[in-house]
Formats: sequence, structure tokens, C-alpha cells
Amino acid sequence: MTRSARLVPSEGLFLVLGLLRAAGPITRAELARRTGLSRKVVTQRVDELIASGLVEEGEIGRSTGGRAPREVRFRAGAAHVLVAELAATSVTVGLADLGGTILTEMHEDADPAAGPDATLGRVEELFDKLLAARPPQRPPLRGIGIGIPGPVAIATGRPVGALSVPEWADYAVRDRLSTRYDVPVQVDNDANLMALGELRAGLAKGHDDVLFIKVGRGIGGAVISSGALHRGAEGFAGEFGHVFVSADVEDACWCGHTGCLTQVAGARAIGRQGHRAAVDGRSAILAAIRGQGRAIGAREVFTAAAAGDPVSAEILTRAGEALGAVSAALVSGLNPSLVLVDAGLVSIDDPFMSAFRATVLERSLPSAARRLRFAISSLGNSAGLVGAAFVVVDELLSPRLLGR
Amino acid sequence: MTRSARLVPSEGLFLVLGLLRAAGPITRAELARRTGLSRKVVTQRVDELIASGLVEEGEIGRSTGGRAPREVRFRAGAAHVLVAELAATSVTVGLADLGGTILTEMHEDADPAAGPDATLGRVEELFDKLLAARPPQRPPLRGIGIGIPGPVAIATGRPVGALSVPEWADYAVRDRLSTRYDVPVQVDNDANLMALGELRAGLAKGHDDVLFIKVGRGIGGAVISSGALHRGAEGFAGEFGHVFVSADVEDACWCGHTGCLTQVAGARAIGRQGHRAAVDGRSAILAAIRGQGRAIGAREVFTAAAAGDPVSAEILTRAGEALGAVSAALVSGLNPSLVLVDAGLVSIDDPFMSAFRATVLERSLPSAARRLRFAISSLGNSAGLVGAAFVVVDELLSPRLLGR
Repeated sequence: MTRSARLVPSEGLFLVLGLLRAAGPITRAELARRTGLSRKVVTQRVDELIASGLVEEGEIGRSTGGRAPREVRFRAGAAHVLVAELAATSVTVGLADLGGTILTEMHEDADPAAGPDATLGRVEELFDKLLAARPPQRPPLRGIGIGIPGPVAIATGRPVGALSVPEWADYAVRDRLSTRYDVPVQVDNDANLMALGELRAGLAKGHDDVLFIKVGRGIGGAVISSGALHRGAEGFAGEFGHVFVSADVEDACWCGHTGCLTQVAGARAIGRQGHRAAVDGRSAILAAIRGQGRAIGAREVFTAAAAGDPVSAEILTRAGEALGAVSAALVSGLNPSLVLVDAGLVSIDDPFMSAFRATVLERSLPSAARRLRFAISSLGNSAGLVGAAFVVVDELLSPRLLGR
Repeated sequence: MTRSARLVPSEGLFLVLGLLRAAGPITRAELARRTGLSRKVVTQRVDELIASGLVEEGEIGRSTGGRAPREVRFRAGAAHVLVAELAATSVTVGLADLGGTILTEMHEDADPAAGPDATLGRVEELFDKLLAARPPQRPPLRGIGIGIPGPVAIATGRPVGALSVPEWADYAVRDRLSTRYDVPVQVDNDANLMALGELRAGLAKGHDDVLFIKVGRGIGGAVISSGALHRGAEGFAGEFGHVFVSADVEDACWCGHTGCLTQVAGARAIGRQGHRAAVDGRSAILAAIRGQGRAIGAREVFTAAAAGDPVSAEILTRAGEALGAVSAALVSGLNPSLVLVDAGLVSIDDPFMSAFRATVLERSLPSAARRLRFAISSLGNSAGLVGAAFVVVDELLSPRLLGR
């Protein structure tokens, strides 16, 4: 990949490469045993991968009597990829290697409502800084991955419908970045990328069936089925933030409906309820925070609840219950072993998470919920970047692209 | 499989066999082209499969100039499997070939509440009749598949928890049948098998993402993700009949909770509401049917609604709405291209299905629901038997078992 030799997809190539990526340094004999390929085929494939620069000779392995065998390993440093995550109030960018490790990262406040031109312009400036800061002896840039808060048509790399930032609808995010950097670009929903990051390098590792929930401005999510991201017929899987939950909520959602889960349990909805409780004096703590000149958003409601404010706790409990009611259908339908919530706002023992967990358990089939684990994302704010790196690398090392 | 040669799982064997099963008669050249294997490897694998009896020479294919190539094809008749489906009020058994075709079928009224001993005893009598009726020149029996109305622990072949027939809980269905017939036995949830039947041989063919719903005594379901049955962490996926939907329903469900979807939208719940409307005279049509000495069950409510009874239509509308509310979360979370409902009770334009469809569309993300199709099972009552045949054959022809 970094050298001249091009890989021609051949028998067993992706079995060998996949095992090297997943299993770390390993001898040729062990590769043959675990792939079921002959020693001869394994040796040929390893030679091809070494020639391509994707694999290198490693340490001397353990001897089993004769000459100690040499291990081979995946060269995560063979190429770099750029990754970015757009959130409701920030932009994060990073430089990653082929192993999904984030090498450098930059984070700053941003408002995607400024529109795709301004926001992606700033992302490009940050990308350029990351590229310029690399040492002279560096591997080539091979791809870009970017997460967007909303549904994305994977085939075209464009955001579609039901966006909290309608300015982005149908904007050619992929084409813009691939034209500028001349590398393949993957555009994906942010929750999908966070779930993928957790699956490959975080708490979801080893779980085949996971329900991932992102409590951002709205409610986003992702479904992992049989160890892989479930995308659905049009790539919109996980978009349960727009399920109807309550006729009591009159504010129209950005999807065009009213009563969406997002309008009860999303950060914007929580902040709005907190703001009202501060203004009308129902919550002394929120009123005091507001008196210090701070706007009341979701974070302030979580803080006030932690400080003992019953009104904030009640807002969060209702939000957690609404999310739990919708999630119960998904837990019962999918029987995951893990429900993972992103670490942006929620913590494992706050009123939101407590009400969410209790509602899911109360409303689901008892035998399916019995062994269900609940956890908060372990990768924290990096989950999306890590997932973006993996989505790019998976595609780069797929049969479709590797031979190019 | 029917002859002496045993198959040793080797490179490309399952690619070749899988393509022969899925694609029908095909030349060796086409097999090589579509599997990516060399002509030499394809020829070796086909020879092994012919020696095992699973594959045979077929017609002469189309010539492309030289000698016309001979096609090879999967021998669906190489073995037989027995299949059975236990429903709330009936038992269906059948004899199938390796292509999932049901060769003979028997159906009779039965009540699984009589307990597993009596019910499986009767299934065995029917199985024995099917076996005895086969001609002398017959292939060997290689497996049994049986569907149970409720969650099944796939690993042990035993029904677990939340059964409408509690007598069956933890009964060793698989062990009983495998001991008696000395073949591998697959025990599975009935809705899973119906969905699999539709996926392989019915309306769901070609759909990668499907939500399947069974309106039986309770509400069952199954999820197809990326072209395969999604089973979940413990095999309980699709059990959304026990999601909480209404505090107005006081009857406790057999799962131990109250307010379950099954208690609003299942056949037993619909029948119970119809019975009340007949007894208290709110529905003249249901009262008249009851006056003829017929007990009022779900079928009578569907019939009365079709005859114009507004009370029955209202019962069905409420049931369809409740099912739609839960399904909206699944449709939004999974983004299927097809929602398929079993053909037992529901038809495409009755009040139940109309309310169900409208509720799913109203309550889901508009862009995810836009292209969603709704349909009624095309295989009708045979879907479960066909699925049971495929689940057995898939396992028989898997790398794990084929070499034995």
C-alpha cells in the first residue's frame, strides 16, 4: 500500500489480512491453523502483504522444538487517515493509523447550523493543520471518515431528511472532501460511528448484539447485530429518536412530526424544560445558575439534579422513562447483551440513566432482559473518531478497494 | 451424504455448495466465475460433492462455440427431513427434501396445553405415518425441525420462560426427538421459522432487512438483518409481544407482567374483547354469532368486522394501533424494507392491518418509512414448515456437520 507492489485480491488474502488485523503478531503456522488455508497459500499471501507494505516481519515466536518461527504483524503505521466528528456544539478532528489509533486530535466549539460550507471549511483548516504537523518521514494519507449528527445516505455520502441542521440536507459532503484531498471519503451517521468504535476498541468488544444510544441534541442510536453494524435497507437504522412517544409535547420536531422521543429526551428538550423551571422559579437551583448569567441547557439540568434539585431530577426521570419505553421494544426485538449509552451527558447513576434502565427492564420480556448489561461509553468523546477510522480502514482493506 | 463418500470440508467447498443450492443448475465455468475459485478447484469440489450424493450432473448447458458444457445441480432429493409446527390450536407436520420443498403435510387440531408429553407423542405418531407412507426407494432421514410458540434456548433445544403454555418450560424437546429418531433436531421459535421460510422461499426473498410479525394467541416476531435471521444474545430476538403498551389492561400476561402488547393485540385478547361485546350486547353481530352457539374468538371478531360491525372494527383498530406503536420503534431502529405479517388471521385491508400500517408510518422517521412495504405472508400456513426445513438443512450442510 505504501510501496510499489499492488495487491491482487487472491484466494485467502482477506482471511489472512483480517486475522493479522484482529489477532496481532502471529506465526505463519498459526495463520494456517486458524484460517484453514494450506501453509503454502499462507506463505504466498504473507509475501504479497509484506510486498504491499501492509504487513511486516515481527519478533521471533516461541520455538516448539526446531528453529523458532518468526511472527508477522499488521503494519498499522502503513498509512494515515483523517477523521472528524461534527456534533451539535463542537467539531473534533483527528489523525489515525490503520489500527484505529487516534494519533493526534483537535477539538473546538462550533455550530453546524452555520451551514456546511462554513463548518466543512473549518474542518478542512483543521485537517490541514494535522497534516502539516506530521514529520517528514510519514506514511501516505489514504482516506477520510466523517460523522454527521443525522441520517446519511451511505451510497452518496450526503445527509438526508430529519436533520437538526436542515442546511445540511443533501449537501455533497463526500464529494467535497474527496475532491480536495484526493482520497476515498466515508460519511456516516455519528451514532453508527460511535457504536463501531466501541465494538472494535471499546466496551462493546466481544458483544455480538448491542443497542447503542446517543443522547445529543436529539436522540440517536445504532444497532449491532451478529458482530456488525446493522445499517438497514436505506442506511437509516438506529434513527429511533423520531418515534412518537407523547401527545403532551407540542413543539414540532425538526423531522416534521410532533411528540418525537427527541422532543422529550434529547438534550435540547431537557435544556428547554430546565430553562422554563428556572424562569418560573420552580427550581431554585436552576434559577440561581441562571442568575449567574449562565444559559440553562441540558448540562445544567444534569448538574442541578446532581446537586439535589428535585425538579431537575424529575425532568431527567421523565426523559429516561421515555427513552426506556422506546428502547424496551428494541431490547425485546433484538435481545442484545449490552445497552451502551454515549458519555456526552449521561452517567451510570444519574436520574436519567436510572429511570431509563428501570423502564427497559420493567417493560421488556423478563427472560430477555435478565442478563442485559447497561454501560456508558468507555471511549468517551473519542468513540466517534475511532469508529470513523475503522469505517475508513475497513473499506480501504476490503476486496473492493485493496486491488486498486 | 446418501452414498459412502464422506465430505471433508475443504477450500471453497461451501462456496460451491452454497451457490449450487441458491442458483440452481449451473456450469462449472459459471461456478468458477461466481465463486472466484479456480476452474481446477471447482472441478475437484464438484467431484467431491457428486461422490457424496449431494450434487449430480444435469442438462447440457448452452454452447458458447465449442463443446456444450454440462451443468451440475444440487440434489434436493438426496435426503429427507421431518418438520413440525406447534400452534395454539393445532399441530402441522410434514416431510421435506433438502431444497425446503414440503413433499407431504398433515394438519390437525391440538392443544399444546395438554402438555409436551401428549403433544409430542402425537407429533411422533404423525411423523411415523409420514415415514411409513414413503416408497421403498427413498432417501435417508437426516434431520428434524420443530417450531414452538414461544422463546426457545437454541443451545439446548428447550422452551424457556414467557410461554403461553407454561407446561412446556424447559422440556427437553430436542433430546426426546433426537433419541427417538437418531438424527439431529433443531427446535426454534415459530415466528423465527416462519420468517426464515419467507426469506428463503416466500415474499421476503431478496429483502435483506425484514420485520416479521406473527399474530397468534400472543404477538410473536422475528428480525431479519443483512439477509439472515437475527437471533440476539440468547436467541430471544423477536419477542416484542411482551413490551408494555397500556396500563388500562388489567389481565396479567403469562410472562408475569401486565399491560403487554400481547394482552391488547394478540388473538386471545381480541377474542376476549369480542366475547365481552357479544355478552353485553354492544355488538349485535357478535351476539348473533354467539346465539348460533359459536364461541367468540379472534376469528369471529375479524369476520364480524368484515360484515360491518363497528364494535369489532374498533377492537381490531385498537389492537393494530398498539402493535403499530411498538413496531414503529423497531422500524425506526432497524430500517427494514419489508414488514411481513403472518396470514393466520390478518389480511391486507382489514381494520387491524390498516390501523397497524397507519400507526407505523405516523410514528416513524418519515425518511425511513417512505419506501417501507407491508405485506401478508405468501406461504400462508406453510411458512413455518418451510422455515423448519431450511433451518435443518442449513445446519446439515454447514461445515460443522457435513464432514461427519
